[in-house]
Amino acid sequence: MPLPTIEWEGDITGRIRLIDQTLLPTELKFVYCDDIKSIWHAIKTLMVRGAPAIGIAGAMGVVLGAKNIHTNDTTTFLKELRHVTEYLGSSRPTAVNLFWGLARMERVALENKDKPVKEIKEILLLEATKIQEEDKAICRQIGEHGAGLIKEGDGVLTHCNAGGLATADYGTALAVIFKAKEHGRHFKVFADETRPLLQGARLTVWELMHADIDATLICDSMAAHVMKLGKIQCVIVGADRIAANGDTANKIGTYGVSILAKEHNIPFYVAAPVSTFDLTIKSGEDIPIEERSPEEVTCGFGKRTAPEGVKVFNPAFDVTPAKNIAAIITERGVIHKPSHKNIQSVLGNHGS
Amino acid sequence: MPLPTIEWEGDITGRIRLIDQTLLPTELKFVYCDDIKSIWHAIKTLMVRGAPAIGIAGAMGVVLGAKNIHTNDTTTFLKELRHVTEYLGSSRPTAVNLFWGLARMERVALENKDKPVKEIKEILLLEATKIQEEDKAICRQIGEHGAGLIKEGDGVLTHCNAGGLATADYGTALAVIFKAKEHGRHFKVFADETRPLLQGARLTVWELMHADIDATLICDSMAAHVMKLGKIQCVIVGADRIAANGDTANKIGTYGVSILAKEHNIPFYVAAPVSTFDLTIKSGEDIPIEERSPEEVTCGFGKRTAPEGVKVFNPAFDVTPAKNIAAIITERGVIHKPSHKNIQSVLGNHGS
Repeated sequence: MPLPTIEWEGDITGRIRLIDQTLLPTELKFVYCDDIKSIWHAIKTLMVRGAPAIGIAGAMGVVLGAKNIHTNDTTTFLKELRHVTEYLGSSRPTAVNLFWGLARMERVALENKDKPVKEIKEILLLEATKIQEEDKAICRQIGEHGAGLIKEGDGVLTHCNAGGLATADYGTALAVIFKAKEHGRHFKVFADETRPLLQGARLTVWELMHADIDATLICDSMAAHVMKLGKIQCVIVGADRIAANGDTANKIGTYGVSILAKEHNIPFYVAAPVSTFDLTIKSGEDIPIEERSPEEVTCGFGKRTAPEGVKVFNPAFDVTPAKNIAAIITERGVIHKPSHKNIQSVLGNHGS
Repeated sequence: MPLPTIEWEGDITGRIRLIDQTLLPTELKFVYCDDIKSIWHAIKTLMVRGAPAIGIAGAMGVVLGAKNIHTNDTTTFLKELRHVTEYLGSSRPTAVNLFWGLARMERVALENKDKPVKEIKEILLLEATKIQEEDKAICRQIGEHGAGLIKEGDGVLTHCNAGGLATADYGTALAVIFKAKEHGRHFKVFADETRPLLQGARLTVWELMHADIDATLICDSMAAHVMKLGKIQCVIVGADRIAANGDTANKIGTYGVSILAKEHNIPFYVAAPVSTFDLTIKSGEDIPIEERSPEEVTCGFGKRTAPEGVKVFNPAFDVTPAKNIAAIITERGVIHKPSHKNIQSVLGNHGS
């Protein structure tokens, strides 16, 4: 079972324990946050990363903030709590899950404004734990729904890190892999290193090794050759955003892997929570692609590896068309041959 | 026009000037070799690399050795020259072109054993220059034959480094690009960085920038997305070995690029001298694939980027099937739709 990325230790007087992801894979170090400054710093410096994990960190940060508000006056408490959420929100202003977590905590506090401060603090801790438990349940349901897709003796390819470090628990793509292992199946995983930021090399193989799963690291450019050698029977990746027709945005390189899988008749699966679907987006063409800094490509390893002044194109994501995806694995079930119709029939009317 | 990788300066009393490729792209430094120890060191430490360039370095090394043999007795001279070639051969014992160059130089010396030592030394210098000139001519002929394949306004994708640094002059894939530029055509080149050793980032974009060609660096995993955006009209790569049926071994990642090109209806070209064909090999299945050290993947940038003890698969090459190749560009002409028959008709009876 994967190590927990983030945990609350103790009662309302307790603290947050988290894995410093910036030191992985060379060092496994737990960081303890006792006040909002330290959790703000942890979020800011990417010690904790991954959309669901950041949401949980924000919610637990609100509990830390509440703990350190020393008043019995509810109005004063709520006013100071607002400063706490505003402060925590400034740690990563573009992280949607962070604001979602902070807003949910503030709403719960307001809903209970007639209760004594001590009780509100306890309700806030319960809510943060609930957010974490909900995420855990989603991860495990995704894992259960997908586990059957990995057969005895299979080789599984994954790209980037859709693992436990980014979530409360099992992750998404890796949840499927962890659950298949729990079901007693034997298989091998090949992990693309995932340039430019090497999440596969730094995080995915680390998580797999910790879960005692047979993991082999390859460069992204080796996936086609490994498939040709017959070593891969399925591909499982996560997702950043899924359009109403099933087109899926994920880490750059995913689209290429989907083409290679098609060429070698290998099924290509996406594992993602229902919250990843954006049904207001008709197709992948409407998903904006963020471009990131050239330095990630030219000096991503503490050493310059390309000429000064070279032009660089560094898109962070690409879009895999639904036709290349055999199935999308969600906590509500598996959507085979994703299409507008097949997605609706599993998701119902959900839109995020 | 590209900078010359390796040059002989002066007459028989002269020296070798070469670009220290290990310092690229952050520093352009010329190294001067005046004796066989210094050229041995340059070959050994990869200051000079690339099959044709190593052959030339070996041949010029023999001239350096000859220069420093101080005798007028031909028998003594030839005996000492043998020590020179043996010594130089120990610099990179697996480099076929090195031995080819050394053997050719020794043969020429033996063929002229009835002449005075001074004259043999001059003949050796002429032969080394001839080897270089032959390679230059081959590069330029490849470039001329291929230049027409790049159209005005095209985007060209290349993988790894098949450029001038590896050869006497224009390279192979890059020769086509340099010649298209000489013909006045305007186009853009996208260069895959080419993990694990980053020849694209370190060498290819450097050469293109020096030749004033519009070059953009991307990670290998971005090629599919760039193709989907309509930015690529043709792919040109080099080759390490071509089988009788046209199956082509080249740097790892090439096979994947060929599949992506097919998916996007983009022609995929290989540029290579006739000497790259090995007609004794029937198909790509018989080409052995070298596996290299895991450290190239896990700590290739002076910094560890994957967990200690992780399993790594690091094949150096892959094989692109002839059916994915639109044409092979050689110094004797362009082989369209490469097949056993079409290759024979351009190459005649050549086998290497």
